[in-house]
Amino acid sequence: MRQNLLRQGADELSYEIRGIVKKAEQLQALGYTIHWENIGDPIQKNRKLPEWMKETIIELLRDDKTYGYSHSKGLIETRQFLAEKNNELKGTQIGVDDITFFNGLGDAIAKIYQFLTPSARVIGPSPAYSTHSSAEAAHANAHPVTYNLDPENSWYPDLDDLYMKVKYNTSIVGILVINPDNPTGMVYPRHILERIVAIAKEFDLFLIFDEIYQNIVYNNASTASMAEVIGDVPGISLKGISKEFPWPGSRCGWAEYYNRTSDSDFNKLCSTIDNAKMIEVSSTTLPQRAIPKVMSDPRYTEFLKETNEQIGQRSKYLTEMFADVEGIQFNLTNGAFYNTIIFKKNVLHKDQSMVIEDEKVKSLLDNWLADDMPFDKRFVYYLLAAKQVCVVPISAFASDLLGFRMTLLEADEQEQIETYKRIKDGLIEYLNS
Amino acid sequence: MRQNLLRQGADELSYEIRGIVKKAEQLQALGYTIHWENIGDPIQKNRKLPEWMKETIIELLRDDKTYGYSHSKGLIETRQFLAEKNNELKGTQIGVDDITFFNGLGDAIAKIYQFLTPSARVIGPSPAYSTHSSAEAAHANAHPVTYNLDPENSWYPDLDDLYMKVKYNTSIVGILVINPDNPTGMVYPRHILERIVAIAKEFDLFLIFDEIYQNIVYNNASTASMAEVIGDVPGISLKGISKEFPWPGSRCGWAEYYNRTSDSDFNKLCSTIDNAKMIEVSSTTLPQRAIPKVMSDPRYTEFLKETNEQIGQRSKYLTEMFADVEGIQFNLTNGAFYNTIIFKKNVLHKDQSMVIEDEKVKSLLDNWLADDMPFDKRFVYYLLAAKQVCVVPISAFASDLLGFRMTLLEADEQEQIETYKRIKDGLIEYLNS
Amino acid sequence: MRQNLLRQGADELSYEIRGIVKKAEQLQALGYTIHWENIGDPIQKNRKLPEWMKETIIELLRDDKTYGYSHSKGLIETRQFLAEKNNELKGTQIGVDDITFFNGLGDAIAKIYQFLTPSARVIGPSPAYSTHSSAEAAHANAHPVTYNLDPENSWYPDLDDLYMKVKYNTSIVGILVINPDNPTGMVYPRHILERIVAIAKEFDLFLIFDEIYQNIVYNNASTASMAEVIGDVPGISLKGISKEFPWPGSRCGWAEYYNRTSDSDFNKLCSTIDNAKMIEVSSTTLPQRAIPKVMSDPRYTEFLKETNEQIGQRSKYLTEMFADVEGIQFNLTNGAFYNTIIFKKNVLHKDQSMVIEDEKVKSLLDNWLADDMPFDKRFVYYLLAAKQVCVVPISAFASDLLGFRMTLLEADEQEQIETYKRIKDGLIEYLNS
Amino acid sequence: MRQNLLRQGADELSYEIRGIVKKAEQLQALGYTIHWENIGDPIQKNRKLPEWMKETIIELLRDDKTYGYSHSKGLIETRQFLAEKNNELKGTQIGVDDITFFNGLGDAIAKIYQFLTPSARVIGPSPAYSTHSSAEAAHANAHPVTYNLDPENSWYPDLDDLYMKVKYNTSIVGILVINPDNPTGMVYPRHILERIVAIAKEFDLFLIFDEIYQNIVYNNASTASMAEVIGDVPGISLKGISKEFPWPGSRCGWAEYYNRTSDSDFNKLCSTIDNAKMIEVSSTTLPQRAIPKVMSDPRYTEFLKETNEQIGQRSKYLTEMFADVEGIQFNLTNGAFYNTIIFKKNVLHKDQSMVIEDEKVKSLLDNWLADDMPFDKRFVYYLLAAKQVCVVPISAFASDLLGFRMTLLEADEQEQIETYKRIKDGLIEYLNS
Repeated sequence: MRQNLLRQGADELSYEIRGIVKKAEQLQALGYTIHWENIGDPIQKNRKLPEWMKETIIELLRDDKTYGYSHSKGLIETRQFLAEKNNELKGTQIGVDDITFFNGLGDAIAKIYQFLTPSARVIGPSPAYSTHSSAEAAHANAHPVTYNLDPENSWYPDLDDLYMKVKYNTSIVGILVINPDNPTGMVYPRHILERIVAIAKEFDLFLIFDEIYQNIVYNNASTASMAEVIGDVPGISLKGISKEFPWPGSRCGWAEYYNRTSDSDFNKLCSTIDNAKMIEVSSTTLPQRAIPKVMSDPRYTEFLKETNEQIGQRSKYLTEMFADVEGIQFNLTNGAFYNTIIFKKNVLHKDQSMVIEDEKVKSLLDNWLADDMPFDKRFVYYLLAAKQVCVVPISAFASDLLGFRMTLLEADEQEQIETYKRIKDGLIEYLNS
Repeated sequence: MRQNLLRQGADELSYEIRGIVKKAEQLQALGYTIHWENIGDPIQKNRKLPEWMKETIIELLRDDKTYGYSHSKGLIETRQFLAEKNNELKGTQIGVDDITFFNGLGDAIAKIYQFLTPSARVIGPSPAYSTHSSAEAAHANAHPVTYNLDPENSWYPDLDDLYMKVKYNTSIVGILVINPDNPTGMVYPRHILERIVAIAKEFDLFLIFDEIYQNIVYNNASTASMAEVIGDVPGISLKGISKEFPWPGSRCGWAEYYNRTSDSDFNKLCSTIDNAKMIEVSSTTLPQRAIPKVMSDPRYTEFLKETNEQIGQRSKYLTEMFADVEGIQFNLTNGAFYNTIIFKKNVLHKDQSMVIEDEKVKSLLDNWLADDMPFDKRFVYYLLAAKQVCVVPISAFASDLLGFRMTLLEADEQEQIETYKRIKDGLIEYLNS
Repeated sequence: MRQNLLRQGADELSYEIRGIVKKAEQLQALGYTIHWENIGDPIQKNRKLPEWMKETIIELLRDDKTYGYSHSKGLIETRQFLAEKNNELKGTQIGVDDITFFNGLGDAIAKIYQFLTPSARVIGPSPAYSTHSSAEAAHANAHPVTYNLDPENSWYPDLDDLYMKVKYNTSIVGILVINPDNPTGMVYPRHILERIVAIAKEFDLFLIFDEIYQNIVYNNASTASMAEVIGDVPGISLKGISKEFPWPGSRCGWAEYYNRTSDSDFNKLCSTIDNAKMIEVSSTTLPQRAIPKVMSDPRYTEFLKETNEQIGQRSKYLTEMFADVEGIQFNLTNGAFYNTIIFKKNVLHKDQSMVIEDEKVKSLLDNWLADDMPFDKRFVYYLLAAKQVCVVPISAFASDLLGFRMTLLEADEQEQIETYKRIKDGLIEYLNS
Repeated sequence: MRQNLLRQGADELSYEIRGIVKKAEQLQALGYTIHWENIGDPIQKNRKLPEWMKETIIELLRDDKTYGYSHSKGLIETRQFLAEKNNELKGTQIGVDDITFFNGLGDAIAKIYQFLTPSARVIGPSPAYSTHSSAEAAHANAHPVTYNLDPENSWYPDLDDLYMKVKYNTSIVGILVINPDNPTGMVYPRHILERIVAIAKEFDLFLIFDEIYQNIVYNNASTASMAEVIGDVPGISLKGISKEFPWPGSRCGWAEYYNRTSDSDFNKLCSTIDNAKMIEVSSTTLPQRAIPKVMSDPRYTEFLKETNEQIGQRSKYLTEMFADVEGIQFNLTNGAFYNTIIFKKNVLHKDQSMVIEDEKVKSLLDNWLADDMPFDKRFVYYLLAAKQVCVVPISAFASDLLGFRMTLLEADEQEQIETYKRIKDGLIEYLNS
């Protein structure tokens, strides 16, 4: 080309959750069946939408209006419905202009960070959900700025660590909280969220709460939404239906802006995000139309309850199954549908392995292992090659910890048992090798 | 906030096609019915998908798989289908890895420009479709770089102007072509496209062809696709179903990369775009599944033919209707579904007006006119206030010309006649005032 | 202009040390004589170079070579001389290629920060010498990143604060130390410098030591140079003759790179700085030629000793004179030639004043006070208007403290007494008003 | 290091005029004497300042004031002197605030481009003086933007080329003119400058005239200064004493801002440049004090006249000497003290050589030629190795032409003849090999 094309930061875009798929596909090409544990797609894991929900959605497609553009910020009636739902919580109130729809939260996240100036940073959790951390890192052309989630303390945010980083790093202009959290599956008690709000208030920051899993809470855990704790601090809540209906293929999520006009810089950020959406004309219409119909259906509450009970059971099953594996550490989860298993310090080393008979697989694996890599990624590649289970290493989530993320999604019980058993066998074989 | 939040370029995001809606909504609030001519949404203009197509889509929603994520680059079978479709043209060949799906072309466009370095510019047409020009301007923190479309020559690109700008502006790394064009409704003959390819080749540039309207061609016009003319020059074709099925609310478009590996800089740009999509996990699944089913349905060809005939008839009707209005200039269109009407030089001045009886509307209009603005925007505001027709001024399309864009979309004939009549009346009244 | 001209960060350039001069010049225009205490220019304060030094310099100007360019990194023989001088300290060793000359340290400082990526930050002291803090802030388009100097602890760096900020702010890539310090006049004991080196080592940072005042140490204070403490950590020492000969008008300073090749990123930074100098061809030749001649003259050591004794006496005189003023706090200084006087908490308020008889001066002052400003700046403007003494407010040194900087430079004893008396009178009048 | 250190653009800094010195030094290390023709340093080429001028300068060093800082924009009396000198031309008038001193023009140039936004470009001549082109390229992270100087037309600017590039490249915000020019030695007639001013006016640009050689004009050539032609267009003239006194080692140049307040963007650019200088406190004082004394000395005019006559004689001598060399092209120069010799099309190829006996030199040369390089650079390396003459290839001056720059500086006639002879011999041997 005639000139340099790319700006700095382009190299920061990475997403191991999808990157590992290329490796697994090489195994598939050899005829192996993969047990996918890499991604939080309930549909892929045999979960089904209830028939009434499907019919509700189908009905909308008989109406021509469903095929058209929606308002650039989203359908007014849906935004009205969501604003009212929020306002019923009796927390911070919002109006229709405080909600903007996006093509899934990935889209919202990209637009939030895209126009931040490089030296203005948003601190997020570590382990981090990579969509946030990659987008943030790319905007700044630097490693993501993170606070620790503490595996010794139910994966709750290390509030001292967060406070110190916010206090001592004046580049930080905002705090990201994922609640319930991906990849740890943890749900934050109200007092933790309140403390984070207080930190934002003390240092004049805005907040981003990724609440995509807000209604996937189980084991009697309780938490609070952004609206209930934020008071008068400026903040953006990110919500969606991908995980809840579940309908990830719809690409439908939205941002709720709280206390937008209380700070002119924040207000301008919100306007910039809205303008970036406006030049794309509109977000997906069908799911926006479905939201009020599905969510106000009396069967919806029951549906969520059942789903949560099932995930809760799997969370306990996992806990029991892995309780006796030496060398690892994890917590019983209470929300979302992941668990993160951490290797204890120094249990991993460079000579561990699992037995692989197939020479072609062996050769693939040798190839994957050719570069230097963190020890957890090495384990993950072995697990894939030897047991055909595809999980994601925790070092890929902007974390110094070593471990891997698995899911609580498999609706087919036999398949679930089989998958977990393969992971467990792999763990034992590898750690004892 | 603790620090500056926004980077330079954030102010370049603007989209009058949607911005004017806020004005029209103020009229609606006073009880007026608006004749929307601002946006290319066939659905809003009473066009209906054929029943067979709706049923095809509905059927997909009965299958659970439809609700899940798709591959981060899009469903493999759909990409396979589209690659084959392209390769049947016997032009430049592509494979499944050369196609990436996005949530509509707005999403694709945002990602193409986002990671370009500020001093690397893509030249596009003027009048410009604002999604391109705003995204390009925002990345560079500068006005868009444009070549002229010539109203005196069927709105064809002024190839001398393009050649001169490419030759003499070494910041330019790529050329954007919209064919058929929005907002001019013009279809480019093959020789024009070949000349543009030759220019790109001479100066070592890549090409972007926005071909969203590729199958909306009428009045016996003919053109060629990027694949048929690009030869070995690197390029990106942008396609989608928003305008064609028509299903704009689906947010489904895709990029086809041609000769991706022929230039390492270009290949890295494509990878960066793919990575930016990958961190958002997936694009919309339902429309991706619908594409092969709908497009390979024997009724689809017939449906497109009928649609094009209807738009062609409207294009002629418009031409006849406005033929006798003094002071304007326009062309019979051959593609897409817009026409751009230009005011002749010096026919507009600051004292023109239309009669408005309603004091409340008068007061609104006074408010809209308070700031300085181009004369075509002033006309557009009058037309909205006095005739309740909402069109978009051409000065908002990165153009020095004055005029407005209207659509050829209204499927309800009575409404179409009414709308055009109001525009014509408004024109005559305003120009003679 | 045709496009936006300036990039973000341009607004961060400010330098109150010179900015206040414009105000003082307005008083001069009314016929007043100003007592300049704003800038560390020994010459302006009646200090004289010894005759032998002048003759040495003059002799060089009889040699034609002195008028020519020097090597782009500086004269080889002078760099050789300085490398040997450094290496005699028996600390970290350097060669001729590890030294680069600049047109004064301001030039060196500008080049160090100019090519840093915006999200890479260098933490410096607060109060800060503005040349560093403005250049750093401008490169990042953000407020400077600073660690506190503690007035309660001899103005030594608050090492806990520094450690916390470095640990918790991962944007920080380097630490700036000014030793002896401007504006506090403090000299850091070796153990403090060693601790800072250890912090840099722990977090993989480079160091910048501004050692322009390295030989202006008195009151029996002792310290260490970068070479003596840095060990194997990469670092840049900044030195010069402006303050020492003293010859600020010569614009001659140099950077010494330590352990340049131990880190490839750091090495590339040094090369970039050298390249930025190379395109300017050369730095000032005359002072470079003077350096070995003057510094190796046996009279030079004696000269420095006498100078330091004089400054030491002034430092004690100041301490005695201001000891009994209520509401302020300061330390006896040991190096450089400034003292920073801090107002105790809450002693300043918005209604304090000094008596001014002259209506024209009153009117000027009213004008200066029209904008909102920190309370110390308000005091400084009153002091200038009422007592004709021009000092610089500490809030202009990137500090949250309130106070002002004065100098220990006045060689004319009567003038010194008069100036200090005016400051003291002003302080008492203002604080008691 | 902890993070990426450098921003994009850092790689654009290059300066072959100095870069080639490293090669020549390798030859020196083998015991060879180099004939330096790479840099415009009159002093190195045996030119001497007249005694009266030296004495004037020396006298200033007896005055203590000479050692102090000057005003951040430069000494007021010197700026007053220069403003009056300018205003006597009866062209555009300036005041003391319209002049700012820098540490040589390299410093001024660095500050002019440093804060321009990357997409705002200044077009300069090609061949280009690298200090301008590198600084401009580094700010934009792109190749320099240039207009052609035409060797077929006395090296005058190709005004059509300039007009086309300015017209068609809307990134261009300013035009740089070097008059008299380095490296072509050409002086532009007034009508050419007027045309360039007209172009700037037509497209709303500012102008930069590098007039460092303004008084080095010979062979009865005549030109005009910026002040005489700029009218009401905003512009910056760059002037200095490096080439004229000649005193390059003084690092003393200044910018004159014309029509600064006529455009608010331009005015803000000037303020930003001044602020960037202000944080460096001051420029060199001694040469600023010398300027009025030397320039108003009656002997100065005579001195300039004699110097110009000598350079003019050398220009003719060069022309005669190289007139009969086949395969090259050049012009008789009229200003500055360089000549640029161009190879005719296709006379250079990859197999040309000169005889080198010394095996050590041969080995050095093999090493220099290891990388791919333009053919003129290859010739330059041969000339250095075989004839020990160090010239600079024209391809290093942002030019597509092939050739080399030599100087008209050698005051020692025997040495001049010897050097030119070696170049001529080398040329003939190489081109005939």
